[in-house]
Amino acid sequence: MEKIKVGIVGLGRLGKVHAENLAENVQGCELVAACSVVQEELDYAVATLGVKETYKDYAEMVKSPTLDAIFIVSPSGFHCEQIQLAMKQGKHVFSEKPIGLDLAEIEETQAIVGRYPDQVFMLGFMRRYDDSYLYAKQLVEAGELGELTLIRCYSIDPSSGMESFVKFAGASDSGGIFMDMSIHDIDLIRWFTKKEVHKVWAIGKNAAYPALDKVGELETGMAMLQLENQGMALLVAGRNCQHGYHVETELIGTKGMLRIAAIPEKNLVSVMNEDGVVRACSQDFPERFREAFVNEAQEFISCIKEKRKPEVSAYDGLQSTKVALACKEAFESNELITIEDK
Amino acid sequence: MEKIKVGIVGLGRLGKVHAENLAENVQGCELVAACSVVQEELDYAVATLGVKETYKDYAEMVKSPTLDAIFIVSPSGFHCEQIQLAMKQGKHVFSEKPIGLDLAEIEETQAIVGRYPDQVFMLGFMRRYDDSYLYAKQLVEAGELGELTLIRCYSIDPSSGMESFVKFAGASDSGGIFMDMSIHDIDLIRWFTKKEVHKVWAIGKNAAYPALDKVGELETGMAMLQLENQGMALLVAGRNCQHGYHVETELIGTKGMLRIAAIPEKNLVSVMNEDGVVRACSQDFPERFREAFVNEAQEFISCIKEKRKPEVSAYDGLQSTKVALACKEAFESNELITIEDK
Amino acid sequence: MEKIKVGIVGLGRLGKVHAENLAENVQGCELVAACSVVQEELDYAVATLGVKETYKDYAEMVKSPTLDAIFIVSPSGFHCEQIQLAMKQGKHVFSEKPIGLDLAEIEETQAIVGRYPDQVFMLGFMRRYDDSYLYAKQLVEAGELGELTLIRCYSIDPSSGMESFVKFAGASDSGGIFMDMSIHDIDLIRWFTKKEVHKVWAIGKNAAYPALDKVGELETGMAMLQLENQGMALLVAGRNCQHGYHVETELIGTKGMLRIAAIPEKNLVSVMNEDGVVRACSQDFPERFREAFVNEAQEFISCIKEKRKPEVSAYDGLQSTKVALACKEAFESNELITIEDK
Amino acid sequence: MEKIKVGIVGLGRLGKVHAENLAENVQGCELVAACSVVQEELDYAVATLGVKETYKDYAEMVKSPTLDAIFIVSPSGFHCEQIQLAMKQGKHVFSEKPIGLDLAEIEETQAIVGRYPDQVFMLGFMRRYDDSYLYAKQLVEAGELGELTLIRCYSIDPSSGMESFVKFAGASDSGGIFMDMSIHDIDLIRWFTKKEVHKVWAIGKNAAYPALDKVGELETGMAMLQLENQGMALLVAGRNCQHGYHVETELIGTKGMLRIAAIPEKNLVSVMNEDGVVRACSQDFPERFREAFVNEAQEFISCIKEKRKPEVSAYDGLQSTKVALACKEAFESNELITIEDK
Repeated sequence: MEKIKVGIVGLGRLGKVHAENLAENVQGCELVAACSVVQEELDYAVATLGVKETYKDYAEMVKSPTLDAIFIVSPSGFHCEQIQLAMKQGKHVFSEKPIGLDLAEIEETQAIVGRYPDQVFMLGFMRRYDDSYLYAKQLVEAGELGELTLIRCYSIDPSSGMESFVKFAGASDSGGIFMDMSIHDIDLIRWFTKKEVHKVWAIGKNAAYPALDKVGELETGMAMLQLENQGMALLVAGRNCQHGYHVETELIGTKGMLRIAAIPEKNLVSVMNEDGVVRACSQDFPERFREAFVNEAQEFISCIKEKRKPEVSAYDGLQSTKVALACKEAFESNELITIEDK
Repeated sequence: MEKIKVGIVGLGRLGKVHAENLAENVQGCELVAACSVVQEELDYAVATLGVKETYKDYAEMVKSPTLDAIFIVSPSGFHCEQIQLAMKQGKHVFSEKPIGLDLAEIEETQAIVGRYPDQVFMLGFMRRYDDSYLYAKQLVEAGELGELTLIRCYSIDPSSGMESFVKFAGASDSGGIFMDMSIHDIDLIRWFTKKEVHKVWAIGKNAAYPALDKVGELETGMAMLQLENQGMALLVAGRNCQHGYHVETELIGTKGMLRIAAIPEKNLVSVMNEDGVVRACSQDFPERFREAFVNEAQEFISCIKEKRKPEVSAYDGLQSTKVALACKEAFESNELITIEDK
Repeated sequence: MEKIKVGIVGLGRLGKVHAENLAENVQGCELVAACSVVQEELDYAVATLGVKETYKDYAEMVKSPTLDAIFIVSPSGFHCEQIQLAMKQGKHVFSEKPIGLDLAEIEETQAIVGRYPDQVFMLGFMRRYDDSYLYAKQLVEAGELGELTLIRCYSIDPSSGMESFVKFAGASDSGGIFMDMSIHDIDLIRWFTKKEVHKVWAIGKNAAYPALDKVGELETGMAMLQLENQGMALLVAGRNCQHGYHVETELIGTKGMLRIAAIPEKNLVSVMNEDGVVRACSQDFPERFREAFVNEAQEFISCIKEKRKPEVSAYDGLQSTKVALACKEAFESNELITIEDK
Repeated sequence: MEKIKVGIVGLGRLGKVHAENLAENVQGCELVAACSVVQEELDYAVATLGVKETYKDYAEMVKSPTLDAIFIVSPSGFHCEQIQLAMKQGKHVFSEKPIGLDLAEIEETQAIVGRYPDQVFMLGFMRRYDDSYLYAKQLVEAGELGELTLIRCYSIDPSSGMESFVKFAGASDSGGIFMDMSIHDIDLIRWFTKKEVHKVWAIGKNAAYPALDKVGELETGMAMLQLENQGMALLVAGRNCQHGYHVETELIGTKGMLRIAAIPEKNLVSVMNEDGVVRACSQDFPERFREAFVNEAQEFISCIKEKRKPEVSAYDGLQSTKVALACKEAFESNELITIEDK
């Protein structure tokens, strides 16, 4: 059983989560290379993760004959190009979401991915690999909720991250709140309902952080989506959650309702004090989705070993991006946007 | 301390709730008259509630010199006319929601109510008198949530009532799901945010009950509302809730979030059995809002005695109806509707 | 339908709760007399509750020919004597718990009550009339939990009341924590299991309030009870609850478990703020058992009118007191105490 | 960084959990040997876990020069002897709880462990390594709860395991419910309070499973413990939990209360259906404590590498066993038992 040799590009916050998982928690693989323009990150990769090859140039890394697979955790704007390069070099590719920010580029990338059917391509919609989401999916597939008619998705980042986000958004393009945050929810909507989105309206408001106006970002946004079968969906995305990292999904079906993380409970402890009965919450995505990140990386490696295709395809990336862009356009125009099937 | 003498019109399901409260649970009043076209209902009022005067003709009842106040719990289409008649006869008037179904008629009614400033007029938005809603309102007014940016309102009737609703809707006009059910939520949005609604889109779907299509009704509907200050609001209304009567309200502010009845808990009991940990839910509006109905009737009587105005005015009725009609129009046209301030 | 004329003795905190209920919330009765040694309390009864007769001497009040029924809410040490006096004067009697503090006196009282079978006697175990407890009782009787094997009862007073309790306990005898607080739980154990207590051990600790040592009271006490059928029961009583008034009951049966008020939720509101998800709690017994107090007084009046016996008898008072005294003895001796059936 | 070479004895249900963790989820170690009298278990270890050495004779395995450490997951009666043998052979030793069933033998084992200060010895009280328990411990140490006065511990196995337990208990000695199940809770009491147990009474009842009487076992048992500082503790142990695996711990302090797993939630999903709002529960110990088992094994390996002592010592094993035996004696005699400090 040879171990799959992996190289990672991007060692920011999420990059480090993936790198540590590949180095320590995922079976059957070895993290052997890292690429970053930041020297400290490469030093960390060598010292802490035992990485043997380091690169400042991505094009060089993907040529390394040692590597079987590439893990892309770079800024969203680079995903398409990096996916294409790696596929062409015969590598299996895992890319963080979104697959890209530009529809034409994504379609080109999807076509190139399609040209290499023996190489695994997987997109990082890790919620699909979270125990609670998998449990919900099983109930849905077993018909426990009947036909799904409405799905409500919240993704609200902790306010503790606001300051660093404002800095980040000033320097680079997040793609907007619907692309940056709701893309996971859009994928969940497509995953649970197996339907595409037809029509969209989106609104939003900045109240506490005027600095967001300057960088063209939203404190809180909401989008209502009509699906092709008249099904309904709602997105709420935000960056100002006082109690932590609030990712919640609700499914309403003809036979029942279901909520995933209605309270984003940190653990099984309840404290009773002068405030009342208090349940602490997950504070950020590495905490909430710690195991999901391991599971998804494990699935990527397993797919390579077992010559299987992962559930999340480039097409899923394309479709989710279309919807996120439509939300953005709907918000900016304050009009209804119909997503045309081409 | 003379007791306020009350006559009630309408002794259907909600009419009986009000009648019993007036007869037994509200201080300082006496239920002396009842009006209904159904003889059994009048017999019940005499036998069970000790009502002394019964009427089949409303116009006759409002002339009774015994009566100080009229309680209107008739079908929505009669409210405006009955309010006007009672005001003109010098009576204090409580009317169930909605104040009416036609904007012109409501505006006329509002004008007439305005002509009798010494008579109390109150509209039945009883949620404002529910302990949990009052507690939330206090927190909001105290600034605990900061500035409100988003409010989410669910009103989903139990599926146990579906059969009788289909019959009812075949025979008479409910006004549609947004008028019939969301009107309470629209009032809550205006009450909590103190803002008017600017723009609306609404969608809906029938999945389990094709019979609803025939009577022009929705199993589940959803409307997204943009407020005048860019604030956001969401309405979900439905008639197919398996677990009971689900009325939930969420407030998202810059400093915190708050949910009222996220789980519509029936009581304080949790059962642990082979299904897991189970919390039973309120099954219908008389159960969930039992005390709120008493409190609102008590407030009506107290306002009469203390020569005060209730918080809920005819103007509130008018504005809520405008929004409900806009939701209806948005759903029927599948387009955005802007509510013009006249 | 003549209204039952009631006289009340004792207008302390709980006395006022009962007096207001009798004056305003209980159907079919009229509060016409009040007895207290405190003039302000009598003034309040006249001014606020419209009481017509006031007494400083209880013996005088029970002779009043106006009165049908006596409500006893005086200090525990007076209950037996006052019950006896009222019964002998032909009055129906409601007495707060405990029925008394001395077994011989209680047995004598029980005998006297028995001599007047046409007069209603009822003891104030109001939890039996709380919606949540009634719901649990129904489930138990329906066999949902199978055979009960263990029952756990918590009664913990809010720490906000500690200061006034220390003053009170310095001036008069509460009977000790098991008599003062657990007596309700002992009644619940007997009510749910229909079994008597056989053997008892009790322990306790003062940690935060040394002042309690001086007045011979406990901050927290715990007693383990073996029932006659080997069933198990647990009492925890305390006076130092930071989050409010914590009265919780757990039933473990062969087919399931059940908890009443595992979280003593104040209302249906959850707040999400920097502390996490917070549920406020009931703060004291008038808040938690507001409706139960109305229901129990209503049951007393209804029993009189319908010539029925209430469920809670003098015998229940005797048996509960026996167990409370055994807990006290077990704690003081730090030994097992067997309760002998005489 | 050499990997620690580990041999495991016992490949039953819990043995497999440990073996898989050592083979796949624990960093810095390698599972190289397995010992069992069951050939299928050894075959499994070779085929699935890649174990290189297999033994039917434990005495032989501990002599293997390849091995650095021994993991003991055999029946409780063998623990002491196997610990002693491994220590004498210079191995680091992890032993499952309880350390033994006989006090004299445990004391001898403790003495032998003490003779090898350079070898790590660790006892498997894995709850101390569970995230929720660690979180609670931090709050306690930070003084959030004030001084602890009462600790309540539930350990109730799922009824789904009853049949196999009855078979098991017929064939071998579990040590009784307090030794078999409450030993974890006794350790928690000592860990949280840092106090020893002084006096004990225990009761129990079999209601649904008469077969338990025949094998001298209890369906549900309860023990009340008085600590040396008058602190209070409660143990409830059972084998008939319908909703899953109920391990709950409550801490009552002078400044607040805290509950760990008051509801043993399986995941973050709530289902709302005709039963109400339903939260599924953990079904067994491998599910509930999956991560804790990994964490504790990781701690064992880390202690070896970093030449540290684990927190859980042989003395902890001795003291917990003393209390469990006292509970057993208290139950069998139905008398109070005082634990003497020797």
